[in-house]
Amino acid sequence: MSQNQEPQQVVPPPVRDRVRVFDTTLRDGEQAPGFSMSRAQKLRMAQSLAELGVDVIEAGFPQASDGDFDSVRAIAAEIRGPTICGLARAQFADIEAVARATGKAGRARIHIFLATSPIHRRHKLNMSREQVLETGFKAVRRARELCDDVEFSAEDAIRTEPEFLIEALSIMIEAGATTINVPDTVGYTTPDEIGALFARLKREVRGIDGVVLSAHCHNDLGLGVANSLAALAAGARQVECTISGIGERAGNAALEEIVMALRTRADCFGLDTGIRTPLLYPTSRLLAHLVGATIPRNKAIVGDNAFAHESGIHQHGMLKNRETYEIMRPEDVGFSRTQLVLGKHSGRHALRERLLGLGHELDDAQLDELFTRFKTLADKKREVFDSDLDALALGQDPEALGPWRLEHLHASTHLGGSASASVKLKHEDGRLSAEAAIGDGPVHAVLRAIERASGINLDIADFQVRSLSFGADAQGRATLGVRHDGRELRGRGTSTDIVEATALAALEVVNRIERLNQTQLNHVQSSQQPPLPAAANHV
Amino acid sequence: MSQNQEPQQVVPPPVRDRVRVFDTTLRDGEQAPGFSMSRAQKLRMAQSLAELGVDVIEAGFPQASDGDFDSVRAIAAEIRGPTICGLARAQFADIEAVARATGKAGRARIHIFLATSPIHRRHKLNMSREQVLETGFKAVRRARELCDDVEFSAEDAIRTEPEFLIEALSIMIEAGATTINVPDTVGYTTPDEIGALFARLKREVRGIDGVVLSAHCHNDLGLGVANSLAALAAGARQVECTISGIGERAGNAALEEIVMALRTRADCFGLDTGIRTPLLYPTSRLLAHLVGATIPRNKAIVGDNAFAHESGIHQHGMLKNRETYEIMRPEDVGFSRTQLVLGKHSGRHALRERLLGLGHELDDAQLDELFTRFKTLADKKREVFDSDLDALALGQDPEALGPWRLEHLHASTHLGGSASASVKLKHEDGRLSAEAAIGDGPVHAVLRAIERASGINLDIADFQVRSLSFGADAQGRATLGVRHDGRELRGRGTSTDIVEATALAALEVVNRIERLNQTQLNHVQSSQQPPLPAAANHV
Repeated sequence: MSQNQEPQQVVPPPVRDRVRVFDTTLRDGEQAPGFSMSRAQKLRMAQSLAELGVDVIEAGFPQASDGDFDSVRAIAAEIRGPTICGLARAQFADIEAVARATGKAGRARIHIFLATSPIHRRHKLNMSREQVLETGFKAVRRARELCDDVEFSAEDAIRTEPEFLIEALSIMIEAGATTINVPDTVGYTTPDEIGALFARLKREVRGIDGVVLSAHCHNDLGLGVANSLAALAAGARQVECTISGIGERAGNAALEEIVMALRTRADCFGLDTGIRTPLLYPTSRLLAHLVGATIPRNKAIVGDNAFAHESGIHQHGMLKNRETYEIMRPEDVGFSRTQLVLGKHSGRHALRERLLGLGHELDDAQLDELFTRFKTLADKKREVFDSDLDALALGQDPEALGPWRLEHLHASTHLGGSASASVKLKHEDGRLSAEAAIGDGPVHAVLRAIERASGINLDIADFQVRSLSFGADAQGRATLGVRHDGRELRGRGTSTDIVEATALAALEVVNRIERLNQTQLNHVQSSQQPPLPAAANHV
Repeated sequence: MSQNQEPQQVVPPPVRDRVRVFDTTLRDGEQAPGFSMSRAQKLRMAQSLAELGVDVIEAGFPQASDGDFDSVRAIAAEIRGPTICGLARAQFADIEAVARATGKAGRARIHIFLATSPIHRRHKLNMSREQVLETGFKAVRRARELCDDVEFSAEDAIRTEPEFLIEALSIMIEAGATTINVPDTVGYTTPDEIGALFARLKREVRGIDGVVLSAHCHNDLGLGVANSLAALAAGARQVECTISGIGERAGNAALEEIVMALRTRADCFGLDTGIRTPLLYPTSRLLAHLVGATIPRNKAIVGDNAFAHESGIHQHGMLKNRETYEIMRPEDVGFSRTQLVLGKHSGRHALRERLLGLGHELDDAQLDELFTRFKTLADKKREVFDSDLDALALGQDPEALGPWRLEHLHASTHLGGSASASVKLKHEDGRLSAEAAIGDGPVHAVLRAIERASGINLDIADFQVRSLSFGADAQGRATLGVRHDGRELRGRGTSTDIVEATALAALEVVNRIERLNQTQLNHVQSSQQPPLPAAANHV
């Protein structure tokens, strides 16, 4: 590639209304404490990002370590669709490492970063303005000898003197950069400020119309997404972001929020991305699974609560017209359906719907009476589960809801050896069933013993144990999700003994399956799913 | 209170540069699935909010349930400082319930909400515009008979026809409302849009200058904080928000982010709050503890990573000058100090600092050699712990780092009865120590057995167990924090058996204490704290 070639001849002109999504989950995200991934995990994530439809995957920083190099090389060799990008300091060794690591990519990009702000020039680089310009120019030139697609990032651009930033970006375009990225490295800017800066860059940077202008925002003040959108509104056509907003400190701008804001408010932005939005939820869950993180319930777009409605007022409105409280459809981001969670804030309408879904058809007088008892229960409990509702409707103590009860439990474990558990279950028809099993730990063993004793096989989709309080006498909670007839049934147990908590959670699910089998109520819903419109029988 | 009195005579005129912080953690936050609190928990949280310096605590929705009524009454009776507010629909029974529940407050507020948007008028209220105006007017009038301080919220204001919204708010001010709140109930707006709306309301609503204008933003598109700030910039002087941004669906705007954005960017906003920012971190942790939620590592302001720096480039800069990557000081929000986490992205500078803190003073050649081995290890491990560094510096296998090793473990538990555990530990000097203990569960029992066998008492500050993967063969991780000599020492164990994982975590801490006692390295740091500047001895 000749150094004198104009970038305009290499990069297709930016399409006005199309935003390129540059995902840096595997680089800026992965470099934050707690989010490291192995090469195999990175590959799996990269495959998922390609399916999601991101335009660029920043796969790592090859010169940082041999492991990073190998990951980038593996992703470049195996993933097709997105451009595969590697990060480099403005040093020839870094740049050449990226070129080697991305050599087998269908499309490759070298991403060079160099700080431009006075505080970084002085304290980190120890360089004058002129040295920064010269170093950057040479680095971009070298990169263009190796790759047609070169991105330059002016690190800490937001705190850089605007005139110097304009000069630096102009020089890097002259050197051959095809994408110019303006990062808010420390998460300091505001929407008004970054909007004004990008508008000025569009006016004053030489050659800017021949390259792609990009924003990269961090979330230290909670403004990462808003700043990214403001930059796009002011002319940026690439946005750098991560799944669930992972990244250094408070993270990067969250991909799913930017994409859904652009889509939901297309009337304001007039911009589009290539993201397949129904894959947002599964991609975010995959990442959480790979890094062992928990997605908070109230996370926008992909949190458990994002489409959940508990309060009576909201539920009432939702049942009449979804748009009263919903601006996006859950299925558009990959949620199966809206969740109406029953709790003390729930109203009569939601209760009736859920009871119907559980097979309890009540007249108004019955509903009134049940609603009073429901409110009393809900004031005591955090969440009211389907088993509680069954118990209310059947006039029973929820704890006593059978048919199986745990009569006896014993579990035992040895270092390095196998654990074992025995359980004795009593059926409401008087039968006793005792069984034992071994397992990888006492929790596993007790699950297997309950399967044997009840004769019900549990196809486990999700299992979690957590301590709920501090100290050695911590309350533990076990939550179990089991696939059954195309639904997910959930059980939960709480005890100071995590093994007992697991047994109680398993028994809740076993009992639900047993009752389903008994009464053949094929429309009964699991705790985690919204009510179906109707069901025929009283239980 | 006469109905003809002008609101101006009751409410002090808004101070131009002071923003009132209206916290609705206990109402809008608490009503979301998974965040319910008992009365005792609400009281504790309210005390903490009063210490934090919020101006208004919305304590609940008294008419929603007897439990909610009791909580509001208890908070009104016991908490002094902030105004105590209760929510009411535009119905006399609701309004009177708030007046009764808040009767003992030092300062009370009745908060009436009524939807104004066409979709809510049609599908939820089934009211014409005129009916909405009349209902709201009568409700505000009635509330002003009972209380000097009345807030009116136009639910779904953002999707209301602007002319009708202006008319409705003007009428409510005429009826006696002293605060006018404009909620983005469904989290739909953008900073530009809400800024323009608030500017228009300031110009066109009759009587607006005599009352406090308020914003209430939800986070469905990730813009809750940015929208709140835009409303403040356009003239709002009250902001409604919650700790950690809990609330319906994707939650409300996060209090800590709004407050720190106003403070960090005072140059843009010129606004102040009464919040004692060093209490932000402890208040957020208290809430997480009370509701059993996890704060994500990458949460802005209060997440574990908010002030953590792993990458070598960032760490290098940080060690030279904190401001290269830090726009807020961690102590300003209640973090003890910045965390430099060691991992594969860490550089030589950070490694040397941490090793010094651990008592390992190395010359350049030794550091070079260690750095290579550190990089190899870090490529394999997610995070490198102090025990790994000790092992590296001492040329040992981290697994073998003593003095104590677990030779034997047995734990057993019975339903409802006590659990027991026995352990055998081997000291590197050849001693064997076997002990047993009972406990509330096998996890508790094994911790007590290890204390007895090692002779080291563990003052447990924090204990967590979590499953790391799905399925019955889930890997479990135990993390233990132990107070020792004014520091917190942390240990971590992973196993398919959660009891074994707990034992390994405890043993890591026991061994660290034992090594500390042996070598009297008083400057050795815990895994979770940053390095102290120096330490004297080689280990």
